[in-house]
Amino acid sequence: MENNTAWQGFVGGRWQEEINVSDFIQRNYKPYDGDTSFLAPAAESTNKLWAQLSALMVEERAKKGVLDMDTDVVADVDSHPAGYLDKDLEKIVGIQTDKPLKRAFMPYGGIKMAEEACQMYGYTPSAELHKIFTTYHKTHNQGVFDVYTPEIRAVRKAHIITGLPDTYGRGRIVGDYRRVALYGIDALIAAKKADLANVGDGTMTDDVIRLREEVADQIKALNKMKTMAAAYGFDISKPATNAREAVQWTYFGYLAAIKSQNGAAMSIGRVSTFIDIYMERDLANGVITESEAQEIIDHLVMKLRMVRFARIESYNQLFSGDPVWATLSIGGLGIDGRSLVTKNDYRIVHTLETMGPSPEPNMTILYSKRLPKTFREYCAKVSIDTSSIQYENDDVMRRVWGDDYAICCCVSATQTGKELQFFGARANLAKALLYAINGGIDEKSKAQVAPEWAPIKGDVLDYNEVMKKFDVSMEWLAALYVNTLNLIHYMHDKYYYEAAELALIDTKARRTFATGIAGFSHAVDSLSAIKYAKVTVERDADGLATGFKVEGDFPKYGNDDDRADDIAKWLLKTFMAKVAKHHTYRDAEPTTSILTITSNVVYGKATGATPDGRPAGKPFAPGANPAYGAEKNGLLASLNSVAKLPYEYALDGISNTQTINPAALGNTEEERVANLVSAMDGYFAQGAHHLNVNVFGVEKLLDCQAHPEKPEYANFTIRVSGYAVKFINLTKEQQDDVISRTCHSSL
Amino acid sequence: MENNTAWQGFVGGRWQEEINVSDFIQRNYKPYDGDTSFLAPAAESTNKLWAQLSALMVEERAKKGVLDMDTDVVADVDSHPAGYLDKDLEKIVGIQTDKPLKRAFMPYGGIKMAEEACQMYGYTPSAELHKIFTTYHKTHNQGVFDVYTPEIRAVRKAHIITGLPDTYGRGRIVGDYRRVALYGIDALIAAKKADLANVGDGTMTDDVIRLREEVADQIKALNKMKTMAAAYGFDISKPATNAREAVQWTYFGYLAAIKSQNGAAMSIGRVSTFIDIYMERDLANGVITESEAQEIIDHLVMKLRMVRFARIESYNQLFSGDPVWATLSIGGLGIDGRSLVTKNDYRIVHTLETMGPSPEPNMTILYSKRLPKTFREYCAKVSIDTSSIQYENDDVMRRVWGDDYAICCCVSATQTGKELQFFGARANLAKALLYAINGGIDEKSKAQVAPEWAPIKGDVLDYNEVMKKFDVSMEWLAALYVNTLNLIHYMHDKYYYEAAELALIDTKARRTFATGIAGFSHAVDSLSAIKYAKVTVERDADGLATGFKVEGDFPKYGNDDDRADDIAKWLLKTFMAKVAKHHTYRDAEPTTSILTITSNVVYGKATGATPDGRPAGKPFAPGANPAYGAEKNGLLASLNSVAKLPYEYALDGISNTQTINPAALGNTEEERVANLVSAMDGYFAQGAHHLNVNVFGVEKLLDCQAHPEKPEYANFTIRVSGYAVKFINLTKEQQDDVISRTCHSSL
Repeated sequence: MENNTAWQGFVGGRWQEEINVSDFIQRNYKPYDGDTSFLAPAAESTNKLWAQLSALMVEERAKKGVLDMDTDVVADVDSHPAGYLDKDLEKIVGIQTDKPLKRAFMPYGGIKMAEEACQMYGYTPSAELHKIFTTYHKTHNQGVFDVYTPEIRAVRKAHIITGLPDTYGRGRIVGDYRRVALYGIDALIAAKKADLANVGDGTMTDDVIRLREEVADQIKALNKMKTMAAAYGFDISKPATNAREAVQWTYFGYLAAIKSQNGAAMSIGRVSTFIDIYMERDLANGVITESEAQEIIDHLVMKLRMVRFARIESYNQLFSGDPVWATLSIGGLGIDGRSLVTKNDYRIVHTLETMGPSPEPNMTILYSKRLPKTFREYCAKVSIDTSSIQYENDDVMRRVWGDDYAICCCVSATQTGKELQFFGARANLAKALLYAINGGIDEKSKAQVAPEWAPIKGDVLDYNEVMKKFDVSMEWLAALYVNTLNLIHYMHDKYYYEAAELALIDTKARRTFATGIAGFSHAVDSLSAIKYAKVTVERDADGLATGFKVEGDFPKYGNDDDRADDIAKWLLKTFMAKVAKHHTYRDAEPTTSILTITSNVVYGKATGATPDGRPAGKPFAPGANPAYGAEKNGLLASLNSVAKLPYEYALDGISNTQTINPAALGNTEEERVANLVSAMDGYFAQGAHHLNVNVFGVEKLLDCQAHPEKPEYANFTIRVSGYAVKFINLTKEQQDDVISRTCHSSL
Repeated sequence: MENNTAWQGFVGGRWQEEINVSDFIQRNYKPYDGDTSFLAPAAESTNKLWAQLSALMVEERAKKGVLDMDTDVVADVDSHPAGYLDKDLEKIVGIQTDKPLKRAFMPYGGIKMAEEACQMYGYTPSAELHKIFTTYHKTHNQGVFDVYTPEIRAVRKAHIITGLPDTYGRGRIVGDYRRVALYGIDALIAAKKADLANVGDGTMTDDVIRLREEVADQIKALNKMKTMAAAYGFDISKPATNAREAVQWTYFGYLAAIKSQNGAAMSIGRVSTFIDIYMERDLANGVITESEAQEIIDHLVMKLRMVRFARIESYNQLFSGDPVWATLSIGGLGIDGRSLVTKNDYRIVHTLETMGPSPEPNMTILYSKRLPKTFREYCAKVSIDTSSIQYENDDVMRRVWGDDYAICCCVSATQTGKELQFFGARANLAKALLYAINGGIDEKSKAQVAPEWAPIKGDVLDYNEVMKKFDVSMEWLAALYVNTLNLIHYMHDKYYYEAAELALIDTKARRTFATGIAGFSHAVDSLSAIKYAKVTVERDADGLATGFKVEGDFPKYGNDDDRADDIAKWLLKTFMAKVAKHHTYRDAEPTTSILTITSNVVYGKATGATPDGRPAGKPFAPGANPAYGAEKNGLLASLNSVAKLPYEYALDGISNTQTINPAALGNTEEERVANLVSAMDGYFAQGAHHLNVNVFGVEKLLDCQAHPEKPEYANFTIRVSGYAVKFINLTKEQQDDVISRTCHSSL
């Protein structure tokens, strides 16, 4: 690679000889362990732009959540002319379509869904595009349904396997957007061309052919990025020469992704430390002031707040409140032990103050108690003020993914630029337990969904008998689940390949295969009830177990009681082992998660009464959260239970969402901050993976539900399982679910 | 399967319980060993229609070979309304587009080629379709070129691997079109749905997913066939109830193929004996007369004479004279020893008399000396009169492919409904020999195409040294060749899958992988010259061997001399072994052919002088033919040499084209017929595979070249390597090549 003038002042190294942003960061970043006094307030341009954007968001909400939509342009990296919020004010430019908040038309995932999304909001989709994407070009969705077996259709309908990415893009593939800034597109194209020369040894197996074609498509996508940037007046063929360009180039990389793909999660990755290197150089050279640095970051983050996709009703039910998981990963430690926290990490968190709380970008602190105390305290303060931050344990993730991973969705880590994930939604283990009891008959539809196993005939459930049958049920479910995902991802690669994102990922990428578990705590508590109490089956006229009478007390997950928590560990390890035994598409490494997003509501609705006493249809506890009402011993005991789940068995993440009454944290801001930091230090030191921190009382939720029009609630943000959302954007049902969750009034 | 009234009078059996046309034929056909006296002359409708069509063909030729073209309809099974030559007269209906001889627009193989074909004839392709097939939908051609390596591009450019199906459809996939008649579409859909349920055991490997999707697409194609037939007023959902319907339904099956695919070879297969069963039933029941039976067959064959595709210049150079290989396979014996020749086989050959000679359909007699003598004599007579027939050895093919195979292209056999072929064009072994001598440098372009092997430095070629280096050269070439084909067929399946044809083939189909050899006789004779004579290298300024001086005599292939013929056998077996060692796409069974079509001219043009004395640029001998002028011992000695090549090593075919002066065959028709039959009996008894029989003198060719406007030459047809062609439709260069071929004036 040429020794570029854009790199003047940087410490050289391997990153100059190969695409290696991590090496560049390690050699050049400056950890910051000072306080927050350097932070600048919002610039005037920021205030003006944010006011404009806020007005558009009000208008958007008034239009049932969608401001405007494309109906006759097929979205792609270079499909639109430049669009602006306010061209003169924006320091960072680039939007997905030609107008702010206007949603693009993305038919490759499924023309039916793209059209349904239009029609839901009163738009008429293009007849010509209908013909093209039904007659000439098959879509991902059509490919998947062509291949589905009757059994897959049945489990899908019965919601024992749910939320499959067959009606929406899989997302979760994070390009290393920083590469655009550090190297410029031309060098990236040259590197991909060099890769192409070494894909395969000449023996053209299907795998080699597929990858060669993919790299060719990546090169085309890189060229389109140049066209896209040129529409905004930028030449990104060469490296960025200053901080503003570095942010702009990085954002253009990300913009290429969100212009061409509508994955459920479209994370921007881990950019703060990288950008800080440019900021520091410019600050040292007097090129920018701190105020301008904050302005650039504010404008970048504002862009991330503007990301929109056209979604359909069934999607909204799973992922409520229009999330896009434009996840920003902040903080963390290097493998060499140095903190990766820079001034720029502060600036990013500070955007929750300069522009107020916001669900997006999904701010994620890569947490360790070895992070600078000032930073941990600052994050805790902003958490308490905004409930807009989640925390993930950098100490457990760094061991697995190194020190340049990023969160690719809600909570799942991937190595930046070196990995892609095949996302897999969830298997409903609470329902699998009911299938074990009912001989494979679905307790809601009464259809024979699983094989016709011998059902349990007795009235009082016997733990050993249940466990034997549950094992068979999970075995069946895991096989079907993995194979369903295999074909979904085959078709996604075939019909809706993420060329732009993968152009910014190494050609020889690691692939993970992310399965997931829903109904976790209910399965655990049900088994505990069967083991430790007396559970009597209530049968309907057909003899189907549709209710359970529980007599006696039993230990519940979420109280730091090993009797229940050991069942939880067993369940996770057992299901993961059953998943891992199967063939996976492209030999991806199987992982699992305990993570439900807001889908806990629909999953619960589709599931009958469970032996833990949960009534039929009631929402599941989200993610790895203990069941509502199960937690009796306060926040710390609850955290201790969740922390026992070994991350190594759930590498896709273990989501835990907690709400604490401000009073429970202390009487002063200082006290509250100190207590929250201390709670998190303790929780994560045990090896726990994730924590969503909400700090408010139920009364605020009730008032907001009653008076959504109050200005203070316009941006009232809460953390739900794996992301943040504006409370007013949840459905009544989901608001009720959030209200019913445990709000800890004591530590 | 229901016991259908359409099947009344047929002998039942397995074919009623499964899709099994062969079983139906075996149980129901009536061999015919009578004479030709039953044959009826052309019906009045036939004469009128043929006159109309002939006029259109004259007009077509006047318009440089293309009468009309689509530019804005994407061809598919159901893309066009009904079209007719003369609706009131046609007993069998259905054309590819809306007008006779109008060529369809087929972009899936490659939008560039589809557009080039339009532009060549002054048509303007649709801008909208351009956008669709460049922006939204990739084509086979684009996919292939995305994946090609620089080495593949180099060998392609150097013409050492030539005629690859990357700019045209691979063709050679013959649906069992008879199934449409015997079962009707609904039963075929039901059978495919049943198959789909058993594709894979639930483990979704890439292979299982791909095949499941393909079967789903096949079912869609079957539904489209019903739509297509309905446009002509027919309901083909149920079986055909009489002979005319049986022909019409069968033709609709074939029409679906030629409406949706433009493969180089689009054969209709083996239908004569099958249709005869319906004819016999109708004749016995007084439903039709012999005159009407002939009329139906004439109209079917007329349709096959009307098949057209839009081709590009480079295609025309390879496959001159607009061939489509609508190959009809006629005759043959059953495994039980009975002749499969029926009255209907006579009727089909008789079309060359009712409507005169014609290059299409490519009439192929599956020959055995055990066929009825009257039939062999009748075919010989028509051959002598029309030069429009080729013969292939049923005795060797039946052993490999059973008794229901058909010729899928020029000479290659495939099992009807049970097999598909991945077509692979040719490797130029004459050039490979020159690469061995020149250290991998191309003798024409002087580019280093193969690896930089040590060249031969001496002046006089040493046989052992040459053989050692030739082995290395063939090893390299075979590997590259097979892998190039692997990716071509991967992309063909991905972007231009033959859903309509494969809907009429068993889901668990056998796949063969047809490689081919060009320059065969020149490589053989060159090695013989090096071994038995003295060959001195003539070098250019760069030291490259560009000429060879041969001193002394040496045995040449084509004279029944084992010294040369043993080299020929060795070359075939050696190259085949090198081909067979490699991974093939979908584990297809590798085969090879010695078969060049008219491409012998372009292949020769691209190849330097060879050590057998052939000058640089001179056409190769076609197929397995001995080199022009090499044959010194008459026709029979030449046939004996070719017959020595073992068919088992060249299962894709060994093409031999011979021209005999009528006088050489005898003085009376009776003598000529007897002598031709006797020559073929002897030739095929030795295990030879194929023979194109031309009976005319060079003087006729010269006169036709000079006076193409003479009416008697309008349909003057000659057999070239693997097909027939109107002599006037060949380029001057190709006419000269044909004229220079050996015309045997003695047996």
